[in-house]
Order: sequence, then C-alpha cells, then structure tokens
Amino acid sequence: MNDTLFSLNGRIVPEREAVVPVTDRGFLYGDGLFETLHAYGRTPFLLDAHLDRLARGLDALAISGAPSRRKLARWVREAVAAAGFREANVRLTLTRGGGARGPSVRGPSTPFTVVTVTRYKRRPARDYTRGVRAILSRVRRQESGALAGFKTLAYLEQVFARREADAAGADEALLLNSAGLLCEGSASNLTLVRGGALRVPDPRLTGALPGTVQEFVVAQARRMGLPVAEAALGPWDLRDCDEAFLTGSMREVTPLVQVDDARIGNGKRGPVTQRLLEAYRKAVIRDV
Amino acid sequence: MNDTLFSLNGRIVPEREAVVPVTDRGFLYGDGLFETLHAYGRTPFLLDAHLDRLARGLDALAISGAPSRRKLARWVREAVAAAGFREANVRLTLTRGGGARGPSVRGPSTPFTVVTVTRYKRRPARDYTRGVRAILSRVRRQESGALAGFKTLAYLEQVFARREADAAGADEALLLNSAGLLCEGSASNLTLVRGGALRVPDPRLTGALPGTVQEFVVAQARRMGLPVAEAALGPWDLRDCDEAFLTGSMREVTPLVQVDDARIGNGKRGPVTQRLLEAYRKAVIRDV
Repeated sequence: MNDTLFSLNGRIVPEREAVVPVTDRGFLYGDGLFETLHAYGRTPFLLDAHLDRLARGLDALAISGAPSRRKLARWVREAVAAAGFREANVRLTLTRGGGARGPSVRGPSTPFTVVTVTRYKRRPARDYTRGVRAILSRVRRQESGALAGFKTLAYLEQVFARREADAAGADEALLLNSAGLLCEGSASNLTLVRGGALRVPDPRLTGALPGTVQEFVVAQARRMGLPVAEAALGPWDLRDCDEAFLTGSMREVTPLVQVDDARIGNGKRGPVTQRLLEAYRKAVIRDV
Repeated sequence: MNDTLFSLNGRIVPEREAVVPVTDRGFLYGDGLFETLHAYGRTPFLLDAHLDRLARGLDALAISGAPSRRKLARWVREAVAAAGFREANVRLTLTRGGGARGPSVRGPSTPFTVVTVTRYKRRPARDYTRGVRAILSRVRRQESGALAGFKTLAYLEQVFARREADAAGADEALLLNSAGLLCEGSASNLTLVRGGALRVPDPRLTGALPGTVQEFVVAQARRMGLPVAEAALGPWDLRDCDEAFLTGSMREVTPLVQVDDARIGNGKRGPVTQRLLEAYRKAVIRDV
C-alpha cells in the first residue's frame, strides 16, 4: 500500500516517474522554495497562508512564470483528495526550473512544481501531554541574510541543527541568530508564555521564518484575550518564562518543557499551552 | 549534437534519464555537495584537489556510504572521455540520497552521484586581456556558519549575489563576510597583488570556500619566487593594491580591473596577473 502520492506540474504520477531533471536549478543550487502543510481529511490546513508565504518567496527569488496561485491551490487539493489519507503531510516544492549553467540566472524561468502527499504518522500522545525537549544548536541564523525569512530549498543549516538534536536524543534544535537572539526551531517556531502573556521572537529582529501555524495560534490567543508581544528574546528568557511551546505543520502545538539541561517552568505542560492546543484542535475540526 | 553528457551513479545515460527522485534530500534540502572542474581534452584538471575538498565535505555533512574516491575519479574520467569534448565543464554532484522525511537524518545514507560533462564555452579573449569588472554584493558570507568552507547544494546565496552582478552588468559579485572582510566571488576566489606580493583572503578568517585553482596558482607563484600572504583584507585593500585577479574552474586566471566604480591599480591587467595566467596555461598544457 502506497504511503506517498506524487504530483508533478499538476499531474499525478507513479513513484518511478516522480523525478526531476538533474539540470533543475532546485537540485543544482537549492534555487527554489517549499511549503509543508498538514492535511486533515481532504483539507490542506492553512493553505492560503502557505501560498502567501510562497508568493513572497517567489518575489524575493525573482522566479517568474510560476503557476498561478489558483492553479497551485488546485494541484494541492487534487493531490490531497487523490491520496485519500485520513491525515497527511503535504509538501509543495517550486523550483526555478532548468536554465543556464552556473549561479547566474539569465532568461525566463521555467518553474518545476512538485506536490507530495504522505500519510501522516501521528506523534506519540505523550509529546502533547508531557511535552518535548530541545537543545540550543550551535548553528546560527543570519538575520540580515539575503535568504532570511524565506523557506528555500537551501535548507541545509536546519539539517545540521537537527543532527545535533538527534545526537542529544532531543526532539528539536533551537537556533539563535547571529546576534544571539532566540530565533526558531529547525522545523518549528517557538513561543514563550510568561504571566499569562505570549512572547514571540520578533521575526523582524531574528530573521526567523514566519510560521503559519504560529500565526494562526497567536491570532487565536488574541481572540481568547491573551496578550501577545513580539520581542527580542534571548536564551535567558527560557529560564524566566512559565511555559513554552513549539508550533509547526508537523507538530501542531507541542509543549516544550526542557532546553538543554534546564527545565522550562515546572517542567510540565502549562495551562496556557494546553488551552491553545485544545483551541487549535477545535479549529481544525471546525475548519476542515 | 549533444552538448552535455550525463552519468548517474557511474552509468552514462541519455538526457531523458538524467533525473533524480523528488524524494532525494539533495533536492528537498540542498543536502549534498558538488565540485566543478575544467577538463582539457580527456583530463579533468586538478581532480585530486576537488576530490579532497569533496571528502572534507562528506565528513562535515556526515554522509556515509559514498562511492570510494577511486570510484568517483573513475566515473569522472569515464564521463569526460565518453563526452570527447575538446574542453569541458565537469560537475560532480553527490547527495545524501533518499531517506526519512523532514530535516532529521536517521539511518544510513544512500548517496546519489551525478557527473555532467558540458562542452566548454570559452570566455571572450578580452576577459583575459582587458580584465573584468565585479560588484560588491550585499550578500554576506557567515564565516562562523556550519556550512562555511564547504561547497554544498545549498548554494542560493551565491545565486542571489550573482543576480546583483548581472543587474549591474558586471562579471562577478564579490562577497564580504559578516565581519566585513573580503571573502570570495560568487563562483571564484579573489587574490590581490601589492608590491609584487600576493595577498589572499585568509579562509580561516573569512569562511571562504578554499579554491582549488587559487591553491594551484598560489603554489605556482611561490615556485616563481613571489611572496604570498594570507591576510584579513577589507574593501579598502581593493583601492590599495596594484592588481587583482579571480580564479576558478570556469575562469582560470582572470584579471579583475574594477570593483563597483573604483578602478583597481591603473585599471588594466597587471604584469603579475599576466605571468600567473601564462604559467597556468603552460601547466595545463604540460599536465593534461
């Protein structure tokens, strides 16, 4: 039984045909973008927010000739429907396509689009009840980097960071930026809670990738009357907060209870995190 | 008539079969390495130095199970011979291969190797006689970055830098590192000449990719009795030198005569650069 469905430029293909030319600039140089979504039933969650972020990336990379937003949305929805999984990870990849050799970009792009839909393997329930542990990575995000804030195929720094977490038996690696500010996880965003208020690393200061799930959770928190502040946060703020949680398409709202050897708060899932996780899950049921 | 020959994992294939699975981590995350060589006749130039650099990258990325150095050398030589071009660009790409989804690297790697051999299009002669112009890019190299000094598939910053050069009608973009030191070009290394001595940005300070052609040219210069110093160089040193040149597999030894609006030296190819270019070309004829 197949656990992954592949769609290339809008056409669903068998796995053996799910290939990209070795001359594609996405493969040669990481010259492209991606988005990772969670699909519940037949509905890709927060698809609009993901397509917004992708569009900003296409602008930044000056990739022209990409399929319209409407077409991309249709391709994602069709692939999710065809896969028919109860829950799925969806990855949407868009490269600059083929073209001249060398880093130089000349002439129009001929973008290549891949949608993969993979059966979702639910995390252990204890990740949500007891929380997870992270490490502080030695990898630093460059807040002033040309790529800061875009989800490009040049994602190797995050792979490096995650290797450190795996080696330490931790669930995630948190990255500081080059100024030493708390930035983000290798594939998640970080939120702290202190005195009932949310504290979010300010992406304009940190160079973090603005997280679609984090944005959604923060908006929900505001509607629930919780104060939210974007701030410059350092590692010291981890010791000084009551709760922390990670958000991401692959982890929803996951309590973070320890970083390196230091507990966060009392080392248990906190009440605000619990409320936000419950609200998130209600929203998923309502929206999809 | 075909201008490119493709070899996948040691097997020469027609272009339509020169593809990589969309699940390859090289495509998904830039999780791999590459080398670009110049082949003269049937001989890939400086192949050993390129394989050395690749081996250091494999170590750093902890990619296991790669083909042996001997096998990689054979694949490159066979591809170059089969292509039969008078001169060629050779690109050797090695990815971590398939594996688990997500940035996490678990289990052994199953590397994927691509060799492409492309007919060399010689640069205009005036590039070598009159020299070329570069701009200072806004992209900064992160000297302390986890990827500093390795030629990974996450090469998008260099693409960004080159776009600035193209927009300015310049031949190359020079990158400073985050400390403001002169680092390297988007696909070349920089050497300055002052008072008959070579001044090379110290890669331990700059985070530059150690260049195989630069190393070769520096070794030749030493044998010719020219003093060579690795140093911390800033943009001000461009105004304060007599000559400058770029080295790289795709440009051999190219005089650099202007950066942004500022001439280097008298704005013409200098005598040391000329001697080194001639020595390089003699060595090519002798060695291949």
